[in-house]
Amino acid sequence: MTELVYVPAAELERIRNLQVGAVERAAIFASACRINALYMIGKAGSGHLGTTFSSMDIVAWLHLEELRQADGPDAPLDRYFSSKGHDVPALYSVLIGLGRLPFESIDTLRRINGLPGHPDISTPNMVANTGSLGMGISKAKGFVLANKLQGRTGEVYVLTGDGELQEGQFWESLGSAANHGLEEITVIVDHNKVQSDTLVERVSSLGDLVGKLKAFGWAVARCDGHDLNDLKRALASVRAEKGKPKIIVADTIKGRGVSFAEHTAMAPTDRLYKFHSGAPAPDVHEKMAVELVATANRLLRESGATELALGHAPFPERPAAGDVQRMVPVYAKKLVEIAAQDTRIVALDGDLVFDTGLLEFEERFTDRFLECGIAEQDMVSQASGLALAGMLPVCHSFACFLSTRPNEQIYNQATEKTKVIYVGSLAGLLPGGPGHSHQSVRDIATLASVPGMVLIQPSCESEAAMATEYVLTKARGSAYLRLVSIPCKIPYTLPEDYEFVEGRGVALTEGDDVVLIGYGPVMLPQAVEAAALLKARGIGVKVVNLPWLNRIDSEWLRQTVAGYKVLVTLDDHYVWGGQGEYLLSQVSRLGLASPPRGVLLGVREIPACGTNEEVLRYHGLDAASIADTIASAAGAGR
Amino acid sequence: MTELVYVPAAELERIRNLQVGAVERAAIFASACRINALYMIGKAGSGHLGTTFSSMDIVAWLHLEELRQADGPDAPLDRYFSSKGHDVPALYSVLIGLGRLPFESIDTLRRINGLPGHPDISTPNMVANTGSLGMGISKAKGFVLANKLQGRTGEVYVLTGDGELQEGQFWESLGSAANHGLEEITVIVDHNKVQSDTLVERVSSLGDLVGKLKAFGWAVARCDGHDLNDLKRALASVRAEKGKPKIIVADTIKGRGVSFAEHTAMAPTDRLYKFHSGAPAPDVHEKMAVELVATANRLLRESGATELALGHAPFPERPAAGDVQRMVPVYAKKLVEIAAQDTRIVALDGDLVFDTGLLEFEERFTDRFLECGIAEQDMVSQASGLALAGMLPVCHSFACFLSTRPNEQIYNQATEKTKVIYVGSLAGLLPGGPGHSHQSVRDIATLASVPGMVLIQPSCESEAAMATEYVLTKARGSAYLRLVSIPCKIPYTLPEDYEFVEGRGVALTEGDDVVLIGYGPVMLPQAVEAAALLKARGIGVKVVNLPWLNRIDSEWLRQTVAGYKVLVTLDDHYVWGGQGEYLLSQVSRLGLASPPRGVLLGVREIPACGTNEEVLRYHGLDAASIADTIASAAGAGR
Repeated sequence: MTELVYVPAAELERIRNLQVGAVERAAIFASACRINALYMIGKAGSGHLGTTFSSMDIVAWLHLEELRQADGPDAPLDRYFSSKGHDVPALYSVLIGLGRLPFESIDTLRRINGLPGHPDISTPNMVANTGSLGMGISKAKGFVLANKLQGRTGEVYVLTGDGELQEGQFWESLGSAANHGLEEITVIVDHNKVQSDTLVERVSSLGDLVGKLKAFGWAVARCDGHDLNDLKRALASVRAEKGKPKIIVADTIKGRGVSFAEHTAMAPTDRLYKFHSGAPAPDVHEKMAVELVATANRLLRESGATELALGHAPFPERPAAGDVQRMVPVYAKKLVEIAAQDTRIVALDGDLVFDTGLLEFEERFTDRFLECGIAEQDMVSQASGLALAGMLPVCHSFACFLSTRPNEQIYNQATEKTKVIYVGSLAGLLPGGPGHSHQSVRDIATLASVPGMVLIQPSCESEAAMATEYVLTKARGSAYLRLVSIPCKIPYTLPEDYEFVEGRGVALTEGDDVVLIGYGPVMLPQAVEAAALLKARGIGVKVVNLPWLNRIDSEWLRQTVAGYKVLVTLDDHYVWGGQGEYLLSQVSRLGLASPPRGVLLGVREIPACGTNEEVLRYHGLDAASIADTIASAAGAGR
Repeated sequence: MTELVYVPAAELERIRNLQVGAVERAAIFASACRINALYMIGKAGSGHLGTTFSSMDIVAWLHLEELRQADGPDAPLDRYFSSKGHDVPALYSVLIGLGRLPFESIDTLRRINGLPGHPDISTPNMVANTGSLGMGISKAKGFVLANKLQGRTGEVYVLTGDGELQEGQFWESLGSAANHGLEEITVIVDHNKVQSDTLVERVSSLGDLVGKLKAFGWAVARCDGHDLNDLKRALASVRAEKGKPKIIVADTIKGRGVSFAEHTAMAPTDRLYKFHSGAPAPDVHEKMAVELVATANRLLRESGATELALGHAPFPERPAAGDVQRMVPVYAKKLVEIAAQDTRIVALDGDLVFDTGLLEFEERFTDRFLECGIAEQDMVSQASGLALAGMLPVCHSFACFLSTRPNEQIYNQATEKTKVIYVGSLAGLLPGGPGHSHQSVRDIATLASVPGMVLIQPSCESEAAMATEYVLTKARGSAYLRLVSIPCKIPYTLPEDYEFVEGRGVALTEGDDVVLIGYGPVMLPQAVEAAALLKARGIGVKVVNLPWLNRIDSEWLRQTVAGYKVLVTLDDHYVWGGQGEYLLSQVSRLGLASPPRGVLLGVREIPACGTNEEVLRYHGLDAASIADTIASAAGAGR
């Protein structure tokens, strides 16, 4: 049976204390940390291996040899953070290796009250929240200015990705750092050549990166990011250029340390790099561990030290998904079907061709597929131009990014009164693992005020097909299609005669005491289960699926809430600006003689990171919690 | 008495038909168009002179000599648009000069159903909506791709500003244009050296601009943007580099054509360039016209042609402002007062130091003032770093930009649970002149869902002082201060014992039939006037000022609406996601036995451009329209 292995605290301490050269020691330390990072991701069941391994040598070197921890309020305080953030297992494993995070936290990656999937300052030694790309240098500038105003000194080290450099904010942030001569900033680009989907070169080439950075007035060096002597040399070289911010382009290998996961092992025909995110299957995991351990032991032996005494733990159970529904593949299939008929359709993507389901579209309609890279603002304004010229553009990204990064661009497009479809996947509170930068619970609020744009979230596969057909073929104007990405167990079936009509929903359960209106394949199953629990407690709940997030048919609403004393709304979103507030305001406008009291359910604080079950429970949005809330509301409403 | 002069249609036609060289003719044409652009801005009472004059020669040349208008569905279709957009009087005057806009439209700048303050495709020959900066190249790429898919050809010419190049999206958009070899795109940078406040060099220097652009793989040339032979040469030079997108850095002079308005006439001690926006006073206008006419006549004489036969029109009446209140100066004074005590306060600005009232702050606390340029994302993430390091940053821009361009950055900062204050001026529907890119009616919706952030809009000067003190000294977390920029006549005074308490408002009028809740110095005066009109019609309206846009004290709300049959909410914002929907949802949650019927008043379509009176009336938000709406609601509610 497969098991997980890790390098225990005592062994990490032994490595730190090896009487060998600094470069040799850091390389051994990094090799041990790779083992622990793999352990953490295996245990968590998700995480970003490729970037964790590509950055590991750099992160280890900086923490062992460069960073000064302030030993008093006036002492120099060096800061390090990763702007890309998803490589955080590297940082966690290094901090655990240094004893700066409790060793026990190795078991808590992506668990509630544990180590979040992206950095959060609630974790010791994290200095900034990252995970939304491109913000790192800007934040570093803020740290440096604060230091100057507070009369303290300190260097700021920022790690970035290379795909991340496609974000406009990266370039936006370069100018003033050079103008103000912020020599306290050292940026290291983890240039591992591969972004979310595949090679940066194929997605949106960075061109002459060193030339660009030099033109911006920065001190620039290039090095092998796995050769610590070379990294030392590069650091010395940029430090010699006084009065300039520094940037090192570190050539690295994505997946470094596991031969078959290294991006250089990709076949020319491979469309995707396979180890960007997600935990490897047990057999793959085991092969990875064997290779990592062999490397660490070899390095130890070469240094005259004994091999690792590993710790062992059982491989976590991963229950089979069972009978689940998936929104994205249904959407993707329908899109292809309609695009075969409507040649105006152009699909635009922000480096998430796999996650947004566009592989088939790209293959079938290569000319009508536009890979924009991690450049959402550029993507949306390109769509704007396409639409002005008579095409029907469909923009894809994760909902969290698509709704906010290009928010002004989306509004600008709306003022042109053209039709553009926006498809945001990874919508809603779940998955709970990546953390709040990726948990999209603000997209309804930030998009519902775009004039003419209809927001729709399907509750199951059949409705996903209807919604896709609606936005592409029937909607007069722009639309936002909000798609849950996790596989969901769906305890309901839509009626055979269900018609997908703007502003109208459908009851999934019947009950006389409370009416609950919600949407989507995450919350509605919880609501239906809650209704069953409440039935046993003598409370009848009518659960209604309303996929229209910002449209309502007044007559339908009147009929739906008539006679109920309590109307519960259930958002897979913050309650602020979600469907619930909108619905309650619309009920108020009906002017009913005796309207139901409104109860808003949804997310009320920054989303917790954890397993899906943990996160639902934390926010009081699992079936049992919902049932309790409804029971007390029903009591109060009587 | 001062009067306006213009070049009539027949004279423009005479110039177009002059039998002289193309360069000579275009220079004369541009000189005539400058006269008409000045006329338009003088008539409108606002507009951007400096950039209109700096770009005029380029715009004239492109339209006279370069652009092909498609003469059939398959013929080449060249497009031109300005990405900065605020130079649109230059384009309008050129199109009028070409007979492609009706000559009568010269009198309709910034008037309803006229020529909008920023380009909108509802105007003939406008190919894209711009005014929000940085989107131009992205849109051009969309046009080119559409052409390829549709099998048609055509060049796309995009004019940009130079301050605009501080926006990240500009740099974000460069890469793929080079990677895809989009040689159909020609960008011309109107490098007039001055952005909104002052010299680009002082705000956020562009450094080695040509070097940067070349590093991005574009064909680059530099020229004198007022020497049309040199512009021709530059165009030929970039066209010679096949397979590359083209960009020309055209050195121009802001205010070109009026000696004392040219930026080169600024004294070294001048903090601000005075002719960026706003119409000159009558005497200044007259001096400008005299100089422009003299130049045009000189050029005509040199070409052997007769001087201009000018048209004349009376200078428009500009009624004195009278007894008005201004929010921004009050805010600015209070900020300085508090910052003198609290040395954690750092003010950050996005090239609007004058408009956001920061001149005194900058002068007194130079070290704590950070000019970020037109780089809102960078500004907010710098604030994030400052706050993490213990400072209290205050970010300033126009509300429309501040709420949307860095929306993801603001959310990222919120997840760090630090305190940052955001101050958005030019908030709300008015002024109506600049057009929808600047009319901020979506900022509540896009910010109210930021966890922990309180949104406040003061209704008069005394409340502006209270609100400023509250957000800086009392609010536990982040806050957004929403400030109207136009001077307002305020027909109410807050009670002497008024306390500024979270979630509570104050009645401005008394009445028993209808309760109206609103905010801000634009809408509340309309509401109070409406209440007076309705009183005469026998309907009593209690008008309530609630400066808290996303916070409510339930007990206060219960008391405020108790006994009323109708609750009207009045948003200086879209009704979608404004205070009104929030309030109605909160009333629903109270569970009143007989709650009032809700009526949402606010903006329901993309804001019209026009005078303030025209715009209020268009949207049904002037006192008379509000009174009519309330009267019919009160009837229905009885």
